[in-house]
Amino acid sequence: MTNELTGLTIAEAAESIEKKSLSPVELTEVYLGRIEALQPTVNAYITVTADRARADAKAAEDEIVAGTYRGPLHGIPIALKDLYETAGIRSTAGSKVHAEYVPAQDSTAARKLREAGSVLLGKTNTHEYAWGTTTNNPHWGATHNPWDLDRIPGGSSGGSGAAIVAQMAAGTMGTDTGGSIRIPAALCGCVGLKPTFGRVSKQGVFPMSWQLDHPGPIVKSVEDAAIVLQTIAGYDPADFSTVPVPVPDYRTTLRNGVRGLRVGVPRAFFFGLLQDEVRSAVEEAIEEFRRLGAVVRDIEPEVTRDVVNMAWPLVVAEGQEYHGEAFATRKGDFGSDLQSVLSAPLPDAIGLTRAYRASYRVKELFRKAFEDVDVMLTPTTLRTASIIGEEQVMVGDTEMTPGGAFASLTMPFNVAGLPALALPCGFDADGLPISLQLAGRPFDEATVLRAGWAYEQATEWHTRRPALR
Amino acid sequence: MTNELTGLTIAEAAESIEKKSLSPVELTEVYLGRIEALQPTVNAYITVTADRARADAKAAEDEIVAGTYRGPLHGIPIALKDLYETAGIRSTAGSKVHAEYVPAQDSTAARKLREAGSVLLGKTNTHEYAWGTTTNNPHWGATHNPWDLDRIPGGSSGGSGAAIVAQMAAGTMGTDTGGSIRIPAALCGCVGLKPTFGRVSKQGVFPMSWQLDHPGPIVKSVEDAAIVLQTIAGYDPADFSTVPVPVPDYRTTLRNGVRGLRVGVPRAFFFGLLQDEVRSAVEEAIEEFRRLGAVVRDIEPEVTRDVVNMAWPLVVAEGQEYHGEAFATRKGDFGSDLQSVLSAPLPDAIGLTRAYRASYRVKELFRKAFEDVDVMLTPTTLRTASIIGEEQVMVGDTEMTPGGAFASLTMPFNVAGLPALALPCGFDADGLPISLQLAGRPFDEATVLRAGWAYEQATEWHTRRPALR
Repeated sequence: MTNELTGLTIAEAAESIEKKSLSPVELTEVYLGRIEALQPTVNAYITVTADRARADAKAAEDEIVAGTYRGPLHGIPIALKDLYETAGIRSTAGSKVHAEYVPAQDSTAARKLREAGSVLLGKTNTHEYAWGTTTNNPHWGATHNPWDLDRIPGGSSGGSGAAIVAQMAAGTMGTDTGGSIRIPAALCGCVGLKPTFGRVSKQGVFPMSWQLDHPGPIVKSVEDAAIVLQTIAGYDPADFSTVPVPVPDYRTTLRNGVRGLRVGVPRAFFFGLLQDEVRSAVEEAIEEFRRLGAVVRDIEPEVTRDVVNMAWPLVVAEGQEYHGEAFATRKGDFGSDLQSVLSAPLPDAIGLTRAYRASYRVKELFRKAFEDVDVMLTPTTLRTASIIGEEQVMVGDTEMTPGGAFASLTMPFNVAGLPALALPCGFDADGLPISLQLAGRPFDEATVLRAGWAYEQATEWHTRRPALR
Repeated sequence: MTNELTGLTIAEAAESIEKKSLSPVELTEVYLGRIEALQPTVNAYITVTADRARADAKAAEDEIVAGTYRGPLHGIPIALKDLYETAGIRSTAGSKVHAEYVPAQDSTAARKLREAGSVLLGKTNTHEYAWGTTTNNPHWGATHNPWDLDRIPGGSSGGSGAAIVAQMAAGTMGTDTGGSIRIPAALCGCVGLKPTFGRVSKQGVFPMSWQLDHPGPIVKSVEDAAIVLQTIAGYDPADFSTVPVPVPDYRTTLRNGVRGLRVGVPRAFFFGLLQDEVRSAVEEAIEEFRRLGAVVRDIEPEVTRDVVNMAWPLVVAEGQEYHGEAFATRKGDFGSDLQSVLSAPLPDAIGLTRAYRASYRVKELFRKAFEDVDVMLTPTTLRTASIIGEEQVMVGDTEMTPGGAFASLTMPFNVAGLPALALPCGFDADGLPISLQLAGRPFDEATVLRAGWAYEQATEWHTRRPALR
């Protein structure tokens, strides 16, 4: 029974909870047991909040028994990347500097998830302040990929990705500045959604970049991503980037299929160097979309890698500005990755302004490309998960940085601010997951989710789980 | 008849045009005649497009006679600040560098206004690339305030403001980076609306600041502002800042009154040093809102002038980045004001990043303040129009820069990105107009316009016109 319960998606568990055939208390205990068993191996969590989880579960159960059902997150055990501030609960951001930091208030997303009746299992592991996608966390240890414990789960929301596929949480939240939701979703073989910039409040989330940070779910299925997004989306006065774009009911349109949907495949930018198995899996996914009735065609947005990369200095400058004071006084408390970032040379004000302008240009070029298509389809990463500790990785015969191998296809949609969904589309010869990326128009998560759901239902990739224990 | 026709608001003229009791050709000829008569005195225009206007008017008239009425701008003679690119028409941005620049394409706003059937009278005077609020344009001469030709019309959309009150256009467009729509509306005694950042596309509008520029109307009445906004608002893939927030029908709610509307008066920030007559006129306006049934109370947003001013370097950096190449090779072709800006010292990348962060903070603090009120009410400028050429101006007994006297109450809403409306609320002892500013929540122009309309209808200030000719 244990594995069966933790195998349920949020949607499946919610259906049983609503019918009172599944107890939130029981479900929570099963997850806590699994965390206890697997945490030493996977290290998905920085902090497990067992007492809080039990209290949340009891409260949810009492409320549901009394006749008040809040919705599909009521009684669902979830975990938050430790970048999310949680009232009364240590929120380390994966750092030593904030190792003892206990916020007085919930971040907006944490509050909304709490108010939806979810059960907080704990805070997941992350790279230090979300910087880096592949290295170990120097303070809290590496998270291990449940498909192969010698491999990285991807970052920076690696703890969340690992927790999902190891069935150590029913749902999780990540954050994504250059791919940090989609990369762990890709390398762990689950679903990650980076919403549109401004769709979800990042109030109370440790910043990596005010311009490129996106909070969003890492979950087991596309429908679960829709459920979580529904809860966290919307205007928040406390986050300058949010706007009062109406939040549609995502599950209403989820099952509408993709017949006639215009799917663009931007080959020049996104289909260069790839692991062979990634390329063939994604090509097969393209064929699947065709079979499902989508109108797939190659497109060539005017965007180049150069203009996307031009935006990078603004992120480095934001990091140096935000961490500057702590770095000046406590340099040794920062890991080597972050020390490099915080010591990196910066352009002058004109160069930095040019970086901002480049980011606007990227947004406009991608938006223009979406005049002719409804979604774009690309691989999520150039390759599957690499070995923990590798500082250079191979893609085919080419050696490159982990950042290049894992973030070069995700980062463009951070600069563009567009919604992008990562979901499983196959496995390589080593049994490691391969991932498909679907991106959409600003604030059109509904179409991205609908496309992802149709593909997911037509395939079985999302049902596979690693044989841990 | 001449003055009667040019005295009509857009709404009034449109009603007659729709009923075919007013001819767009006749209306256009009357405006062209008035421009010919007053342009030597007022210098509201850089370029008068008489041939284009006659062709537009003839086309509109033919279409309307044939039974196709496009809406309330059909056949209405308008003018665009010369910052808007217009296909086939010189678009100088008030500069020497672009003195001969003829774009191939319309800016998005120009295109939308053309497609709405409006008649283009010409391109209005502006400070060089919109920099500066009070000095003469060094290349195209000063615009003169129609209420007192020795005085400034305010800037940088001074030509548009002067054209409205001199009845040299039925409607105009301005742009507003620190107050450049609202300041000329204030000093000329007409209505100016800076919409929410992202509400109106700035594609094809010469940039002053990518982060703070806002295109919007300068017109005769609040209803006219609603009409123009209706036409130009909306998502545009070609402008990164626009978002798909639905555009409501602004005229539907315009007449709903202000009973129960929560009006906040932020005294600490906005009611410091003021010309006595400005203070008393705005206090009287507050009483008028009370009489109309609004719930008026003092509020204290946590925003300080210091944090607003912290954003300024990002604008200067944007100017230096954008004009850098031309400035390096053609310094002498820039006026002295802009030469100063383009030579100003800049912070380093960290300092500039701090400026961006300060701007986010300003947005969030203002948004929070709007949790408790529906609109904020402030003066638009500290004083009425000053004398052309004055480099320091008096506010009461205090000498200050024109920027301080005119932009210090408008600029906060540029940094905040919030909609703000300037409209007449009285006259000083010299017969110069005084202006009220109403600001609102992001994308809630409808409430701001409704509040402005109720006040406007309860008073007669907007009906007064200078005795030019």
